Amino acid sequence: MAQSQFTNGLPTAVDLGHHINSKSRARHPSPLKDIIQFMAVDDMVSLAGGLPHPSFFPFKTATVTASPPTAGESPCLLELPLDGFLQYGSGTGNAQLRAWCGEFTQRVHRPAYADWNVLLHPGNTNAWSKVVSLLCETDDYILCETYTYPSAQAFWIPLGIKAAPVASDAEGMRADTLAQTLRDWEDSYPGTRRPRVLYLVSVGSNPSGVTMSTKRRRDVYDVCIEYDVIIVEDDPYFFLQYPEYDAGDSVTEGPEFVGSDEFLRSLTPSMLQFDHQGRVIRLESFSKTLAPGLRLGYFVANPLFTERLLRATEVETQDPSGLSQALTLRLLQSWGIDGYLGWLQGLGVEYCRRRDWMIDAFSQHFRVGYAAKATGTLVAHLGDVPIFSFVPPTGGMFIWACFNLAQNPAFEELRHDEKVVDPEQVMADRLWRQFAEAKVLLTPGSYYHPWQGPDKVTTNARGATPLTTYFRFSFSMTTQEEMERGIARMAQVIRASWKLEQ
Amino acid sequence: MAQSQFTNGLPTAVDLGHHINSKSRARHPSPLKDIIQFMAVDDMVSLAGGLPHPSFFPFKTATVTASPPTAGESPCLLELPLDGFLQYGSGTGNAQLRAWCGEFTQRVHRPAYADWNVLLHPGNTNAWSKVVSLLCETDDYILCETYTYPSAQAFWIPLGIKAAPVASDAEGMRADTLAQTLRDWEDSYPGTRRPRVLYLVSVGSNPSGVTMSTKRRRDVYDVCIEYDVIIVEDDPYFFLQYPEYDAGDSVTEGPEFVGSDEFLRSLTPSMLQFDHQGRVIRLESFSKTLAPGLRLGYFVANPLFTERLLRATEVETQDPSGLSQALTLRLLQSWGIDGYLGWLQGLGVEYCRRRDWMIDAFSQHFRVGYAAKATGTLVAHLGDVPIFSFVPPTGGMFIWACFNLAQNPAFEELRHDEKVVDPEQVMADRLWRQFAEAKVLLTPGSYYHPWQGPDKVTTNARGATPLTTYFRFSFSMTTQEEMERGIARMAQVIRASWKLEQ
Repeated sequence: MAQSQFTNGLPTAVDLGHHINSKSRARHPSPLKDIIQFMAVDDMVSLAGGLPHPSFFPFKTATVTASPPTAGESPCLLELPLDGFLQYGSGTGNAQLRAWCGEFTQRVHRPAYADWNVLLHPGNTNAWSKVVSLLCETDDYILCETYTYPSAQAFWIPLGIKAAPVASDAEGMRADTLAQTLRDWEDSYPGTRRPRVLYLVSVGSNPSGVTMSTKRRRDVYDVCIEYDVIIVEDDPYFFLQYPEYDAGDSVTEGPEFVGSDEFLRSLTPSMLQFDHQGRVIRLESFSKTLAPGLRLGYFVANPLFTERLLRATEVETQDPSGLSQALTLRLLQSWGIDGYLGWLQGLGVEYCRRRDWMIDAFSQHFRVGYAAKATGTLVAHLGDVPIFSFVPPTGGMFIWACFNLAQNPAFEELRHDEKVVDPEQVMADRLWRQFAEAKVLLTPGSYYHPWQGPDKVTTNARGATPLTTYFRFSFSMTTQEEMERGIARMAQVIRASWKLEQ
Repeated sequence: MAQSQFTNGLPTAVDLGHHINSKSRARHPSPLKDIIQFMAVDDMVSLAGGLPHPSFFPFKTATVTASPPTAGESPCLLELPLDGFLQYGSGTGNAQLRAWCGEFTQRVHRPAYADWNVLLHPGNTNAWSKVVSLLCETDDYILCETYTYPSAQAFWIPLGIKAAPVASDAEGMRADTLAQTLRDWEDSYPGTRRPRVLYLVSVGSNPSGVTMSTKRRRDVYDVCIEYDVIIVEDDPYFFLQYPEYDAGDSVTEGPEFVGSDEFLRSLTPSMLQFDHQGRVIRLESFSKTLAPGLRLGYFVANPLFTERLLRATEVETQDPSGLSQALTLRLLQSWGIDGYLGWLQGLGVEYCRRRDWMIDAFSQHFRVGYAAKATGTLVAHLGDVPIFSFVPPTGGMFIWACFNLAQNPAFEELRHDEKVVDPEQVMADRLWRQFAEAKVLLTPGSYYHPWQGPDKVTTNARGATPLTTYFRFSFSMTTQEEMERGIARMAQVIRASWKLEQ
């Protein structure tokens, strides 16, 4: 594996081997190791490997044209290396690509310990499944945000694993609440194992849109040391960070480009930057920065964990697609680290523009103003009725809106109907369908409810704020004109549902 | 999913839902289904999907040059479609590619039931891990051949699953032994669940090289109906079938090319061809026919199983690499089914040639002759001493040689040393290392011992034939000259070890 060369007197990872679960502990190193060692001997005749002969691979050359990293430069013509990329790999992924990812990690994140490793994986969905299979036992609890990414949960729920959600605010997960949850664990969840894994989407969180502040990261990291928790930082939106929303600002221009170092300084740091023990597993993905179809990303973690993850890789997936590796390697080599950082800066500008389009579309159809400037929360009213509130995100692709149902007459009826167990959810379902019938699709907040077991499903049982429900707005995929049309339709439905004047 | 259109009055799959394990049963369908249904509505504004915008994908065009399907034609220039292949997919894989695989399956295998399905996967390693996770519970037994593929086992061993090996002969796994194993299960393995899964590499088996005969397939299938066993046919070498070895035949010419239909008739049929109940899960791979680096293959199975496998795909891997899919689709479209069948026929010719090179190399350094013509087993002697025996394969890439240690003086010493628990294995390890030091690498037979638990590890406890040990010879990767050199070195080591005259 590509071990860090940037030791500089930093500490090495502490021994976290006790976190490796029984299944992962039971994996044996590949018996091929002996053979591989001998294969390197000069003049060796190997009748051992069961590989197809490369002369029978039909692909001869591959050429890709790609955008330049920043506007105004010439397009890139990439001749892909095919030798080695069409054959079986070793599980770790291509050495050159791993080395590139290692160098990039050092430049961007400057991890606080010496012996971190890089291991390629076929996308964060798969990476997360491998991490759960590395660390969790059946019936464990996983710490997560109040609202969490449903595909991550969908992997762990069938294993009998439940979520232990920890409240967040505008700075991300609260460190004090995390500490309290862990301190009171045996009282709150008697007879269960205290959680050992914290799952975090710490930049532009899906769905909440929140980016965790630097101070909060330090505090959460310290709590995780105190209670011996492994932090899994699933961070596909890391480079889609952008400035705070300013209603007065022109949205068409966007921020100016700055140099790589200034760009990097502008980013909220990864947990890796404080990780002097090696207790952060970072899931890095090219899906949001290059293309999801590559199905390519990499782990950054301590060497004990990457060794076990490699054992899992050998028997569960093998290397990521060789074509995806070859193309990504050539592109990144062609662009260079600074070129790639320029590309990423450009992406941030684009997604920032889209966030502003969305909030502007809200402003066209609602009266939008700060609840109280200090909180950073914007409230969208129709007349004097507050309809929904949100914190404008500074990263990612999502606006997470809390709808206030208190003044909705249909909801009032549901609340007083004794047969209705969860009036908030019934109202949410009804609104979602009315929006869809009016031809605007939102994502229902219920998708992001952490699974805490069948007895904690309703708004009440989950301990969620009564009289509210959430919808997620994605601003990544639509044009400004479509957003405006969609929000106009939503406003229409709301007027009708709330029985407000048209 | 690409459901078969070739019903023709065939039965539909019987209900095999009771085979789905508790974990797989607990998977929920993706909640996005409601959203996806509405997305298709005309003029819908979707603010629901959290996808990156495709205008920010840097890849613009991709061109690959490829071999023609058969010699003498012009090379193919493939312009890859990128639209749709760079974005997130739905888990099922590209519809066009699935349809192609479905049509190909119908042409080649003519499944005996109507409602089989195709689902893409990222290679058979991953496919097998998904099948174990679909069907097996912790501490189950899996039926397999006497010697089985180690990577398949390496996935299941950490789950507490053990192998129940079933004896094979030159026609493959014995149906009578399989029936007996299942009939006597409760006596032989008291307190354990009777196996429900049979793992088979039924063409050019790794390591045994055996291709299962048609009659044996029917008989094994019938036993599997009787005992309600699901057959997993991991069949990467299916198209590397070739004629029987004939010592008198010229090896440089190889067989002549025939038309597609005649080629298909020449192949031992897949289990699918008898599968009127839908109890075969076929793992199809492009690794041995196009290139392993594609990390691409597909399941053929009944719709109940493919639905659950899709649920697993959504949370464990997502679609295979879009680039791999795009390239494979374009190549197969360019070649056409008959072109691809021509390519496959060519591969068979090449691997057949290599098998013959290997046996010829044996013949140069050993006296090779039939043990008894009826058995098809060849024995390699030095002088009058039988050293190893093997059945010349008619498929795949491997020769599986049984070494006869009886007349080896070093082994004699080991046998009579009371301190040596497993003299056969000690001798095998010693020989392997001596071969490697003489610069010829073989794969030790011990890699392929089915894991039956810690009490069944030694030659004796496994019930293996005493005084023997196995080595696997791969003939896929070396030139004829290298093979000859390697076998010469091996013969030298054997002469020394057996203390035969030089």
